[in-house]
Amino acid sequence: MDTGKNIYLAVVGAGSASSEICELAEAVGKEAALRGWIVLTGGLGGVMEAAAKGAREAGGLTLGILPGQDRSQANPYIHVAVATNMHHGRNAIIAHTADALIAVDGEYGTLSEVAFGLKLGKPVVGLMIPWKVPGLLTARDPKEAIARVAELVASRRG
Amino acid sequence: MDTGKNIYLAVVGAGSASSEICELAEAVGKEAALRGWIVLTGGLGGVMEAAAKGAREAGGLTLGILPGQDRSQANPYIHVAVATNMHHGRNAIIAHTADALIAVDGEYGTLSEVAFGLKLGKPVVGLMIPWKVPGLLTARDPKEAIARVAELVASRRG
Amino acid sequence: MDTGKNIYLAVVGAGSASSEICELAEAVGKEAALRGWIVLTGGLGGVMEAAAKGAREAGGLTLGILPGQDRSQANPYIHVAVATNMHHGRNAIIAHTADALIAVDGEYGTLSEVAFGLKLGKPVVGLMIPWKVPGLLTARDPKEAIARVAELVASRRG
Amino acid sequence: MDTGKNIYLAVVGAGSASSEICELAEAVGKEAALRGWIVLTGGLGGVMEAAAKGAREAGGLTLGILPGQDRSQANPYIHVAVATNMHHGRNAIIAHTADALIAVDGEYGTLSEVAFGLKLGKPVVGLMIPWKVPGLLTARDPKEAIARVAELVASRRG
Repeated sequence: MDTGKNIYLAVVGAGSASSEICELAEAVGKEAALRGWIVLTGGLGGVMEAAAKGAREAGGLTLGILPGQDRSQANPYIHVAVATNMHHGRNAIIAHTADALIAVDGEYGTLSEVAFGLKLGKPVVGLMIPWKVPGLLTARDPKEAIARVAELVASRRG
Repeated sequence: MDTGKNIYLAVVGAGSASSEICELAEAVGKEAALRGWIVLTGGLGGVMEAAAKGAREAGGLTLGILPGQDRSQANPYIHVAVATNMHHGRNAIIAHTADALIAVDGEYGTLSEVAFGLKLGKPVVGLMIPWKVPGLLTARDPKEAIARVAELVASRRG
Repeated sequence: MDTGKNIYLAVVGAGSASSEICELAEAVGKEAALRGWIVLTGGLGGVMEAAAKGAREAGGLTLGILPGQDRSQANPYIHVAVATNMHHGRNAIIAHTADALIAVDGEYGTLSEVAFGLKLGKPVVGLMIPWKVPGLLTARDPKEAIARVAELVASRRG
Repeated sequence: MDTGKNIYLAVVGAGSASSEICELAEAVGKEAALRGWIVLTGGLGGVMEAAAKGAREAGGLTLGILPGQDRSQANPYIHVAVATNMHHGRNAIIAHTADALIAVDGEYGTLSEVAFGLKLGKPVVGLMIPWKVPGLLTARDPKEAIARVAELVASRRG
């Protein structure tokens, strides 16, 4: 593992989500882990837990950047947890830490992460997202989302 | 002045903006100040400076929550400046501090503030905004934006 | 009021304190306000409230940078409140915003503010402080603390 | 690896340090890793790098919570890096994430981490520290520091 070369993918989405949405997030996490990427989330339930589950069960390393004051909130698929005690403000940290973001469905907290990712000039791909935002890419399924991220991160790293 | 009763309006938008956009922001700031509201911004140029100018010249109090490490970045219309040294992360503080937000045009940083405002359940009104986000209200001009905010804040305070 | 020229003094100390300690903090706030300084605190009770009371009753402007998610925590002497929702992390913002800090007694949160102030190279003066930290100045009473700050800030501004 | 059960030890100290100090930090990191603990630092040089080196070379996992805007600042011994873009404010996150802290020598930034650790009620042990702070424990050497932390964390977990 080499922090400088690893790709960190943030999978962002709501803390409670339908089983359909969670299946998408789990597939995103799995595909990312199979490419050797670190999967980063907000560490809680819903999309965050599904993405971490997919990644961990595929042998990947998972990082959770939590809103609360200690690590106990982390879902059981998080390997390394960070307790920010900054609540929604931790969304900026997620965007700074990631090389790219994939948003799955998502609510307003997710939108803040998407906005920060775009602000920082990082590839941001949405699956089943409810907003129209210039610059936000979309994909039809997890594999396409991962493929787009892979291509964009590679071109950014030159 | 009574912190508990004053209305804090965040005017959010890009740090560099056209004169047309700045005129809108200045009018928003002026209308807010005429109602006795505190006008809160990110403290820099563009929309932030125009809103503070409009508010200050109309006799209002202006608060700037800055991204950098000291207060020297504040535009000349800020009465009270806060230096966060948190960069984009300070956008969450703006949303927490405000009772309502008005976004004028805006880029991705603005979108993060809009997202946080909506996440926190606060009235968020956009003028000339480029995104489609469910729950984000729009207005045709500054007076309408201020009127909508006034009505929504009043109903929330019951 | 001119943000660039005003002196912002942070008065830092415990959220619950004895009446003796609160009298000291109130006197510090009063002396600062009489010099035209803005008095900045963490916005809660104890030393923070006493300092804001002293400043406000002497005609000064008070700023409270709060730990919680909204402005309702602010003590009644705060003119302008900022809600960070970052809890202890807001102590770094207090140190960045201030030109100088005066610590009155204080517990561990206060010590973090003292440490940040010293790290940033700002004058930090303690009254009745329980720690020994190289570089932390001490004073015997509020007037001496204010006089030391005035001298040091003036020499830094050259 | 189980986030809920792993012990996270923060090793805090200056970003540039003498070889003597770095040897202490490296020994602390090594001893922590040999017990299976995750070693957490601010991710930069000096004490932070030495502690991570000691931990990584002993087979441990290292986490770096960086002050800057991307992960490129991380020293080469960091496995998982977090980019906060909050500068000194990230010290609060280090204290929240850790179960215990060991300070090695250290300057004012270190003192802020010590203060936050004590504020949060966590065991904080100092090696060669220049301050006197009630509640801050001291040890004569890395093994004693690690042993004290082990005992205190165990008693806190009951």
